[in-house]
Amino acid sequence: MRVSFDDLKDAFCKALLKAGLSRDRAELCGRLFAENQRDGVYSHGLNRFPGLVAKLSRGGLDGHANPECVKTLGVVEQWDGKMGVGLVNAHLAMGRAIEIAKEHGMGCVGLRNTNHWMRAGAYGLQAADAGCIGMCWTNTTPLMPPWGAKEKRIGNNPMVMAIPRDDGHILLDMAMSQYSNGKLEVLRTQGESLSIAGGFDAEGNLTCDPGAILDSKRALPIGYWKGSALAIVLDLLAALISGGQTTHDIGAQGDEYAVSQTYIAIDVTSLVGQEMRERIVNGVVDDVHGVHESVRYPGEGMLRTRRESMEKGVLVDGEQWEGLLEMR
Amino acid sequence: MRVSFDDLKDAFCKALLKAGLSRDRAELCGRLFAENQRDGVYSHGLNRFPGLVAKLSRGGLDGHANPECVKTLGVVEQWDGKMGVGLVNAHLAMGRAIEIAKEHGMGCVGLRNTNHWMRAGAYGLQAADAGCIGMCWTNTTPLMPPWGAKEKRIGNNPMVMAIPRDDGHILLDMAMSQYSNGKLEVLRTQGESLSIAGGFDAEGNLTCDPGAILDSKRALPIGYWKGSALAIVLDLLAALISGGQTTHDIGAQGDEYAVSQTYIAIDVTSLVGQEMRERIVNGVVDDVHGVHESVRYPGEGMLRTRRESMEKGVLVDGEQWEGLLEMR
Repeated sequence: MRVSFDDLKDAFCKALLKAGLSRDRAELCGRLFAENQRDGVYSHGLNRFPGLVAKLSRGGLDGHANPECVKTLGVVEQWDGKMGVGLVNAHLAMGRAIEIAKEHGMGCVGLRNTNHWMRAGAYGLQAADAGCIGMCWTNTTPLMPPWGAKEKRIGNNPMVMAIPRDDGHILLDMAMSQYSNGKLEVLRTQGESLSIAGGFDAEGNLTCDPGAILDSKRALPIGYWKGSALAIVLDLLAALISGGQTTHDIGAQGDEYAVSQTYIAIDVTSLVGQEMRERIVNGVVDDVHGVHESVRYPGEGMLRTRRESMEKGVLVDGEQWEGLLEMR
Repeated sequence: MRVSFDDLKDAFCKALLKAGLSRDRAELCGRLFAENQRDGVYSHGLNRFPGLVAKLSRGGLDGHANPECVKTLGVVEQWDGKMGVGLVNAHLAMGRAIEIAKEHGMGCVGLRNTNHWMRAGAYGLQAADAGCIGMCWTNTTPLMPPWGAKEKRIGNNPMVMAIPRDDGHILLDMAMSQYSNGKLEVLRTQGESLSIAGGFDAEGNLTCDPGAILDSKRALPIGYWKGSALAIVLDLLAALISGGQTTHDIGAQGDEYAVSQTYIAIDVTSLVGQEMRERIVNGVVDDVHGVHESVRYPGEGMLRTRRESMEKGVLVDGEQWEGLLEMR
């Protein structure tokens, strides 16, 4: 079924108010959840919302925590997320990176002791909306074996790169596993199989069955050894720049909390004139479109879903929607 | 056969002096070529050297060009490489990013109108040697089809992330194709096949034959659609930050020249104390080593080859070595 974007946003917001968030934070998080669902990122919309609310009520997450800047080195800042809500902290951290970029061309924020930010791409889009190139990545609890091993030790550490564009931003939002955990969960629920092998089954064979991969916990890194190496490096960068925990540290806790993240913004609107920006970005978009009608630029599919959502209403699972209404 | 590192470096240097480079530049480029060979990056050592010398002599490359800073926005600088030697320009650009980082925590240089930098990782190691996190990437001429197409339109745009470490830096040096063009060339010459499919043959079937992929020009991006998207985004970032050409523009020229690159340095040594840096980096290295003896951290294989090269001499192809001696 479909519901209007505003109804969805309001429902998220009311449920978060009831869970104890301040109005500002409930509105911010409600909007982010609704936008994730609107853009077709179903793995981080209604799907994950009850989990966040449960954590808020049982105290796994401090809805009132105030992130603090703990160190400044020129245009680089280290922030302590104080175990607060991941979406609030992420929005603040990218906001601060954008502020620094507007003053100094580029800004970087390392955020430690924070929690799941839901959809990684949201904060890249935030930078692009402000006319900045946005880059960010997070570490996670161990979710994949490094290349050459069977035991999960590395995170799937989503990485985001966003580029502002008047006709719709370019957005790369990429987990280091061939399929994100959220995507595997959605496909398992839908009873669908993967188009290419996404990991190993319990017997160590490559498989297209999302459930078998979730059970074996052996997702395949993108590009085999390459994605494995990139996941390790992103983990190190996030922990170093924030002075926070690594995937190894997070895994030792049991549950996933107190993760580390990096946010970088570059004020490309001030650096490059509009005419040249359009020539460069639209030149590449046109080139990609010209090669074959099925080829899309990064973020294009998301924009199509967004337009459809705004025209026809946002696609929701009836049961999940009813669940949300009951949480208000 | 094996030759000493110093003999190799001297031979490169003398050949470059004879080709008309100044002593400073000949020594820098000779060292970089020798280090690439020493570290086992045979695709960008003796293998590519004659091509560079040929370009210097026939005028495709200006050995005396002086790169120029054309725009400054806070900690971001745009440089014009003036069609000079790629290695010289790259070393200068990362050097400048490091200087800015030492003053402001982080620095970024966009470099346009430059040429092939040979081994991408060299400039990440340069940043790590200076105690900085180094990130850099380049665009290239079209080398792969974007996901969903058969015609090559996107570059394989190598991306580098380096992290300083006393016992050997962490280094990710990764082309967007599952196998770099250089690697495919080396394996074809050695008559070896790939361990996993690296692209399509002329009939559109996935293949492990490096020659078939070089002939069809249909290399497979890492992670299928994900590497394709990352290549597009890195191309856009390199062109925007430098105000330079995109892969599409470069392809329209025919030959590969006047490429665009991005260099970022973060002064992690000043940002994070030594004790915490060691805890974070060695914690991850130990964790990766602990899972299985065959698992390596990014850059570890390179360091092993380097040690072997320094003990026993650098591995060279006899014919290529004789060729170099004749070029002096």
